[in-house]
Amino acid sequence: MISIPVELQDDSYVIDVEQNSLERVGISLASLGNVSRVLLVTDDIVDSIYGNLVSESIVNRGLDLDVMVVPSGEESKSIDVAYSLWEHFLEAGADRRSVVVALGGGVVGDLSGFVAATYQRGIRFFQIPTSLLAQVDSSVGGKTAINLPRGKNMVGAFYQPCGVLIDPNVLSSLSVEHYQSGLGEIIKYGASLDDDFFLFLETNIGKINVRDSSVLEKIVARCCRIKAQIVAEDEKEVTGRRAMLNYGHTLGHALEAALGYGTLPHGYGVSIGSILAARLAARLAAKGDDRFIEINDAWIERQIDLTRKLGLPISLNDIGRSYSDSPETSPKNLLTLATSDKKSEFGLLNFILPVRLGKCIYVKNVDPEDVLAVLN
Amino acid sequence: MISIPVELQDDSYVIDVEQNSLERVGISLASLGNVSRVLLVTDDIVDSIYGNLVSESIVNRGLDLDVMVVPSGEESKSIDVAYSLWEHFLEAGADRRSVVVALGGGVVGDLSGFVAATYQRGIRFFQIPTSLLAQVDSSVGGKTAINLPRGKNMVGAFYQPCGVLIDPNVLSSLSVEHYQSGLGEIIKYGASLDDDFFLFLETNIGKINVRDSSVLEKIVARCCRIKAQIVAEDEKEVTGRRAMLNYGHTLGHALEAALGYGTLPHGYGVSIGSILAARLAARLAAKGDDRFIEINDAWIERQIDLTRKLGLPISLNDIGRSYSDSPETSPKNLLTLATSDKKSEFGLLNFILPVRLGKCIYVKNVDPEDVLAVLN
Repeated sequence: MISIPVELQDDSYVIDVEQNSLERVGISLASLGNVSRVLLVTDDIVDSIYGNLVSESIVNRGLDLDVMVVPSGEESKSIDVAYSLWEHFLEAGADRRSVVVALGGGVVGDLSGFVAATYQRGIRFFQIPTSLLAQVDSSVGGKTAINLPRGKNMVGAFYQPCGVLIDPNVLSSLSVEHYQSGLGEIIKYGASLDDDFFLFLETNIGKINVRDSSVLEKIVARCCRIKAQIVAEDEKEVTGRRAMLNYGHTLGHALEAALGYGTLPHGYGVSIGSILAARLAARLAAKGDDRFIEINDAWIERQIDLTRKLGLPISLNDIGRSYSDSPETSPKNLLTLATSDKKSEFGLLNFILPVRLGKCIYVKNVDPEDVLAVLN
Repeated sequence: MISIPVELQDDSYVIDVEQNSLERVGISLASLGNVSRVLLVTDDIVDSIYGNLVSESIVNRGLDLDVMVVPSGEESKSIDVAYSLWEHFLEAGADRRSVVVALGGGVVGDLSGFVAATYQRGIRFFQIPTSLLAQVDSSVGGKTAINLPRGKNMVGAFYQPCGVLIDPNVLSSLSVEHYQSGLGEIIKYGASLDDDFFLFLETNIGKINVRDSSVLEKIVARCCRIKAQIVAEDEKEVTGRRAMLNYGHTLGHALEAALGYGTLPHGYGVSIGSILAARLAARLAAKGDDRFIEINDAWIERQIDLTRKLGLPISLNDIGRSYSDSPETSPKNLLTLATSDKKSEFGLLNFILPVRLGKCIYVKNVDPEDVLAVLN
């Protein structure tokens, strides 16, 4: 088992990464102490594969259990589904000693984390992420949210779990698309924050592509450690440090929004957005911006090479002409979407741009013409 | 002006109490700095009296302003109204530099505080409480919430405002019922937490009943100071210290729930609940419980005397036979409601009981027979 402490002022907790740990969920929950009831939230797909295993492990420890199954997919991150969970909690007699357990991917984690954060002003929340994306990204850092019809993650809370349990073995049951989507964020960690890790990925491409459990255990733990460190320095996105996690995200989010959330897998958006950000840095370097002096074509090619070998797209063209030819993904429309992002300040175009392998900087107010040039 | 610091780890702020301060809301908001937009939430009644004054003060400082008016009354603490506010914020282009301003009583404060706490995972929140109850209680302490159909305050967050501005002059426009409801909480502070303050109330009954502004300024500031101190020691209701604010609330809440929330004014419930709690302490004393040795009939009479002179009920009978004779307010039903309260642990009957004037203790697991005896 690899244990990663997440050190926060009042809300420190530990992420445990271990193969086959799904079988011992009940032990972890019982060890929290003073648990009146376990409120397990999962989606229909995860429930059909792991629901029984996890439920049995919980009941076998003598804990009272309620299971709530929501439809899989982004549509469940809605006020309506959140409302049905609050009502269900109340009916089940959930009190301040109850624990919400999220068994699933990012949707289940974001949704049930928000419901836990707000039920009776906050009850304990335990995460068991089952998608690669959730294991390396959304289960770390305490961001919970639901969507408004016109705004993703517009309603939510910073709310830390009391514990996270990650079983890399569950990754074997993911669809290719879901698996690759997680790899998009993983490349991001290496390219923008950790050059040793990027090298590790380059030398383990074969094992990653066959989902070797022991390599995945190392990869997941490494990503959690990188993110936990940054979150500890800036829990609520105040100092700007946390923004360093957003390499590839400015245009990645714009691409996702342009195609309608849920169409383009998040990791694909990050992947394409990262290559675009790299090209943007190279363009600024060519224009004489000394901050990007180490960014050149060879650097971009190395990132493209790893991205492609892990099966990820570097442009919308790689996914299909119907995406790249859509009027929604026109450079001008993407620019508008990037400017209206929740993280944009005063409508400015802000980017996380690479300065060398494993190191990035926050660049405010990039010239729209430079972004358009990269998008064209 | 009386300034009361509320000292919390990351979220310290100041409560300013000053006559006529409503005219300078804009100055206070501008001084927060970095304000992209002011989102003023108020109810229709408050809006008709103070809406223009406050809006002008804000606009005169050059701040961008959106005003959202919700219907007055408990019904506005609903998911539907919260949803309409989130949507309105999004439409108005609210971002992380926007400030939500609650102008109104407890309903407006609880509702808009929850919406501020959750919009984009939390934006700044500024309180201008206009009811006596909100000025002395709900605007201090960071509790925000909305109701579920079957549970008051079941969905919410602990979320501190960035500032509170209290103008005691607005109390002159309150209805008698609303004014007295606030007095119920004020007597509570004296009786259970501050004997000097109880004495101050006894010697100022006449001025309180004519709503003398300078006496009210002192009273409001004193209550805020008492509550701020306790909240600073136990922000999120973890150590039990914060429970000390709940004298009169176990049965007070039960009475409110029995009659349907919004029927019995909260302060009336607290008032009746406090007298019942005092009688319960006296009963335990008579049965030989040494903790309550100082509680006797004379002590109870003194509390009853102040309560009555400030126009508050000491039993449902005082309000009307239709209340006291209802099957909903039968001792047995009240007992059931008190046991199912959000604050009850494992279905036990817990009370804050007085041990002498200005001092109370937390008593766990009171014998239901003793509670029934007091209710009969």
